Amino acid sequence: MNNKCKKKLISELKIAIIDLFKKVQTEKPLIHHITNYVTTNDCANIVLALGGSPVMADEVLEVEDIVQVAKALVINMGTINSRTFDSMKVAVLCANKHSVPVVLDPVGVGASKYRKEIAEELLKIGKFAVIRGNYAEVLNLSGLYGNSKGVDSAVVDGEMTPDILAKYAADKFSSIVAITGKIDYISDGTHTIAIKNGHENLTNITGTGCMSTSLVATFCGVAKTDLFLATISGILTMGIAGELATAKLKKKEGLGTFKVNLFDEINTIEKAIYKMGRVNYV
Amino acid sequence: MNNKCKKKLISELKIAIIDLFKKVQTEKPLIHHITNYVTTNDCANIVLALGGSPVMADEVLEVEDIVQVAKALVINMGTINSRTFDSMKVAVLCANKHSVPVVLDPVGVGASKYRKEIAEELLKIGKFAVIRGNYAEVLNLSGLYGNSKGVDSAVVDGEMTPDILAKYAADKFSSIVAITGKIDYISDGTHTIAIKNGHENLTNITGTGCMSTSLVATFCGVAKTDLFLATISGILTMGIAGELATAKLKKKEGLGTFKVNLFDEINTIEKAIYKMGRVNYV
Amino acid sequence: MNNKCKKKLISELKIAIIDLFKKVQTEKPLIHHITNYVTTNDCANIVLALGGSPVMADEVLEVEDIVQVAKALVINMGTINSRTFDSMKVAVLCANKHSVPVVLDPVGVGASKYRKEIAEELLKIGKFAVIRGNYAEVLNLSGLYGNSKGVDSAVVDGEMTPDILAKYAADKFSSIVAITGKIDYISDGTHTIAIKNGHENLTNITGTGCMSTSLVATFCGVAKTDLFLATISGILTMGIAGELATAKLKKKEGLGTFKVNLFDEINTIEKAIYKMGRVNYV
Repeated sequence: MNNKCKKKLISELKIAIIDLFKKVQTEKPLIHHITNYVTTNDCANIVLALGGSPVMADEVLEVEDIVQVAKALVINMGTINSRTFDSMKVAVLCANKHSVPVVLDPVGVGASKYRKEIAEELLKIGKFAVIRGNYAEVLNLSGLYGNSKGVDSAVVDGEMTPDILAKYAADKFSSIVAITGKIDYISDGTHTIAIKNGHENLTNITGTGCMSTSLVATFCGVAKTDLFLATISGILTMGIAGELATAKLKKKEGLGTFKVNLFDEINTIEKAIYKMGRVNYV
Repeated sequence: MNNKCKKKLISELKIAIIDLFKKVQTEKPLIHHITNYVTTNDCANIVLALGGSPVMADEVLEVEDIVQVAKALVINMGTINSRTFDSMKVAVLCANKHSVPVVLDPVGVGASKYRKEIAEELLKIGKFAVIRGNYAEVLNLSGLYGNSKGVDSAVVDGEMTPDILAKYAADKFSSIVAITGKIDYISDGTHTIAIKNGHENLTNITGTGCMSTSLVATFCGVAKTDLFLATISGILTMGIAGELATAKLKKKEGLGTFKVNLFDEINTIEKAIYKMGRVNYV
Repeated sequence: MNNKCKKKLISELKIAIIDLFKKVQTEKPLIHHITNYVTTNDCANIVLALGGSPVMADEVLEVEDIVQVAKALVINMGTINSRTFDSMKVAVLCANKHSVPVVLDPVGVGASKYRKEIAEELLKIGKFAVIRGNYAEVLNLSGLYGNSKGVDSAVVDGEMTPDILAKYAADKFSSIVAITGKIDYISDGTHTIAIKNGHENLTNITGTGCMSTSLVATFCGVAKTDLFLATISGILTMGIAGELATAKLKKKEGLGTFKVNLFDEINTIEKAIYKMGRVNYV
């Protein structure tokens, strides 16, 4: 692609994002989460703030009933245990059967052998439409070497640049892969998009990764087949909101106010805001 | 009742609510919750903001010890699983034995067969002093047809108006029943009260239903036998706080700030505020 | 110690606290929590606000992997159940083996026989570097009589003053013991420190006890052997932040805004603030 062509595509992309954003408000998609207990409240509120409808349910005896009426399913591995793992497996298979897109957040997948094995089993038995993680998590998930320190760190010894890794993982798992960080990269295996929005504050409160995943799932819930677009929309929305939430901070305000601002921004987003998107093809 | 008589009763009701409100501050009732992990933090903080003392505990081996010293028990079905269901059954029976009022929040009861069956079993084995839900949840619980979309929706095919449904369910379960929505209806089977306070914002953050239930339980914890009054007090308090929290919102503030305001309002309520109550007999 | 000597020691102590505070920012210690689902989000955010890196994980099959790379382990007994109790035991033994300091928060230990037995078993099998609780909790833990009403109350019949109790428990468990309340007391069995910072608002939102424990653990994560200093640092930081968060409250603001302010204060702490510390040897 030449630059002129890329510029035109990006311009069309932003228009498509705005359309998808409006569809969320109109269709209020139900987003089923099987997720951790650290950030559940935040994930539910971020879906609501964008205009969707969250449901959190992880009992194996009921997840099939709920998946079938949901528009997307989030599988978030934070605080996973053997009980919720069983529910995840059942839910993923059911979602696949009913063509409900599944978004995987492999939280802290490098933190333990157990988590690694669980992630591998999930990827083996089911189909994930989208995978969103940080560099270390996606590196680990892809079977490449990585030292993950805790759940949030991106300090690894891998040599692959994140844009190449996104493409590699997208190929390997036949999924859309989003690697979030200072620059976010989203790949469908063919095209890779870089987003230069966001702010460091997003890494200093818990849950912004989980919330990004929930936003992606919310856009997936109205996107029909274009889940690449939905993923870009979710990641971009969080990035822009993070910038705006930071810009509003007054002197002596810190991460407490930042978090409040973040929900305010997601909730009062207007379509014009997507002009702020620093999105480019890699 | 003629209008003059109703007006007098409502005036007396408001005075009684203020008395109950003061008792919460003085007696700081201990409110035991077996509840979901989405809104636990909010429920604990709302009880504290009103002046009560929350305790969240769901291990089956300890719930009896805690129920016995509590002034009310909340059974909230959000994120229910087979482990917490067992604890709920034990806790409800123990509460009934020790005359501790039990408040049921049948979150998303229409979302799965499992949840429906659990709710039915709870209602069969135990006595619930109060049931609080939205229209779809109470319709489902009452065995009437309803399509519940997720946990929050009130879009159903039922033909019963919510005031009639509240009375019907109150009769059926020998409970006080509160159906919250644009207008809230509270019935003890004989009298039905309508509350026209509240604001749409309350439906756009997660947990306001759960928190209303916790407020009702907190008032129940000091109300002795008049649990109808306690239920009205809890629902009215949330409605008024929702209005005040909205009125304080400045330009560009959204649901993040609204939630902060809501806790501020519950926490700084003065008795004069209950004059704002738009309460009437149906 | 004479007064002049004490004054000099306190002055040196404050300098040491500032050093430790800077080390948290530099080293960003990973703090593993096995904790309750009421305040998990707050605990993760408070660790982040101070500069540490939280990880919440409670599956028995993975806790050993995580403990070994952590700089401190928090064992918080709120909403404990038989599943998480198993994980705690494994994690504590692993932490002891790898010299990772363990901080115990015996939330509501007097609330049930079950919780009491669990606490006793934990203390029997493992070594806790620090124990932080309120007066009633530490009294109970120490096998002395106490009536704990819920998890937060300090209304007990014990006759031991809290400074004596802190020393007693520190001796008994060979731990640093912190008893938080109107005045906080921290003892290593030899020396006992009183802190007169803090504000009543800290008792009116849920989670400030848990968060204090997480702050203590974060300081422990960089303190090497001086865990007495680390414990004082954590408790003092919360006390000062509570005062500053209260001072910023405007008219009609309540506990909602107070909580936001608290995170802002922890996050924007400057070393000069420790001058506010009202710390003394008992």
